[in-house]
Amino acid sequence: MLRHGESIWNKENRFTGWTDVDLTEKGEEEAARAGDLLKESGFQFDMAYTSYLKRAVKTLDKVLDRMNEDWIPVRKSWRLNEKHYGALQGLNKSETAEEYGEEQVRLWRRSYDVAPPALGEDDPRNPVFDVRYREVPASELPRTESLKDTVRRILPYWKETIFPSLEASDQLLVVAHGNSLRGIVKYLKRLSDEEIVKLNLPTGIPYVFEFDDHLKLRKDYFLGDPEEIRQLMDAVANQGKKQTLVAEEAAMPGKEQ
Amino acid sequence: MLRHGESIWNKENRFTGWTDVDLTEKGEEEAARAGDLLKESGFQFDMAYTSYLKRAVKTLDKVLDRMNEDWIPVRKSWRLNEKHYGALQGLNKSETAEEYGEEQVRLWRRSYDVAPPALGEDDPRNPVFDVRYREVPASELPRTESLKDTVRRILPYWKETIFPSLEASDQLLVVAHGNSLRGIVKYLKRLSDEEIVKLNLPTGIPYVFEFDDHLKLRKDYFLGDPEEIRQLMDAVANQGKKQTLVAEEAAMPGKEQ
Repeated sequence: MLRHGESIWNKENRFTGWTDVDLTEKGEEEAARAGDLLKESGFQFDMAYTSYLKRAVKTLDKVLDRMNEDWIPVRKSWRLNEKHYGALQGLNKSETAEEYGEEQVRLWRRSYDVAPPALGEDDPRNPVFDVRYREVPASELPRTESLKDTVRRILPYWKETIFPSLEASDQLLVVAHGNSLRGIVKYLKRLSDEEIVKLNLPTGIPYVFEFDDHLKLRKDYFLGDPEEIRQLMDAVANQGKKQTLVAEEAAMPGKEQ
Repeated sequence: MLRHGESIWNKENRFTGWTDVDLTEKGEEEAARAGDLLKESGFQFDMAYTSYLKRAVKTLDKVLDRMNEDWIPVRKSWRLNEKHYGALQGLNKSETAEEYGEEQVRLWRRSYDVAPPALGEDDPRNPVFDVRYREVPASELPRTESLKDTVRRILPYWKETIFPSLEASDQLLVVAHGNSLRGIVKYLKRLSDEEIVKLNLPTGIPYVFEFDDHLKLRKDYFLGDPEEIRQLMDAVANQGKKQTLVAEEAAMPGKEQ
């Protein structure tokens, strides 16, 4: 599994969710490095999965290109999209904290089951107006989501589509988003609601899950230089200790919520 | 339909065929321009098809990205690959002319049913050794092809997969190669063997085929500025008049055979 690289709204410190923003140059470089790392480590994927959002699709394309695996089948699903951030999408995170208060914003961002304010039904950002979701029943399209909602809509795709394809494929690649990947990790590692909100996946670092012949999870680990990964982990941990939301956000490049 | 942009071996004047060479920077720009043109012209694709070769896959990815259609389903098939150029693959075209004589090379490149010398069975370039073709029966994998062979292997994919998907989709995009697209054009326009070898599709210019409600071909046309297209056509026609193969090849950027 791989989180997409830095997007333009990561950089601008805005809530992104289902908004289809592009990668930054740094984001493309992160994707290229992840591809090189996977190739050097001997990976050879049989199939890949990604979301309907270009920051994930383009990260995947770049990874496959660096691995000379441009040719493998790619399946895209709206169910792998990032958590929907409702009416907060597009808003600057520090402005949001000023308007709603830091504690409220922290709750929307860090709780498992509290969703941000929903988009109005007539809001042009409502996914029912977006042609890419025309085949999804309107009742399934969110106008906001808690992490719990995100997990709930991603798991059917993991269970019914991605995981069964391991029967025929040795190696699968899933390129998605911080929160949609959290949903899969929570399920595979049986993490509690509290544990999963604390898990911050680093961007651009492949997260490997190995299964045995009976498709039981055998082990999971981040790929790459252990020292570099430890530093990334420490950085995430330290960011959590900062006093203000704004400072925390600003210090977390590659973070997307 | 769209031919991929300039590849590295176009630029180096080498026979490419099934060799998986990358786009040049110019090739990527051609793809971006084609994407912009399709978007400005109001196209919105439901699905896209391409080959197993990265110069086509990456052209498609770039087109879709410029159209903000990164999310649409993409299907890849070996049947959309370029004509296989047998033992000539990798050879410089002027060196080949020196070795085999210009008339012989002209025959391999311009006849409908004469194939270049085949790769040996043990040649590492034999597609049976390439993991990407592992699901294709060995008997169907070429070690060389005439244009006739290329047309014969591409038509089943057109007839059984691409064309039937027009029942459910209004607009399809096929990004492939000079010779694989020729196969489809020959079939759709009922061109003779002589007519198809004379047809040179310009790179980076979308070639639109419109069908009526009964899926009968209604009209076909190149998309873009008529003056620019006329100049490209004239350039192709003039290149055919040059005296030496080497001069002709060198003067044909974006040409891939």
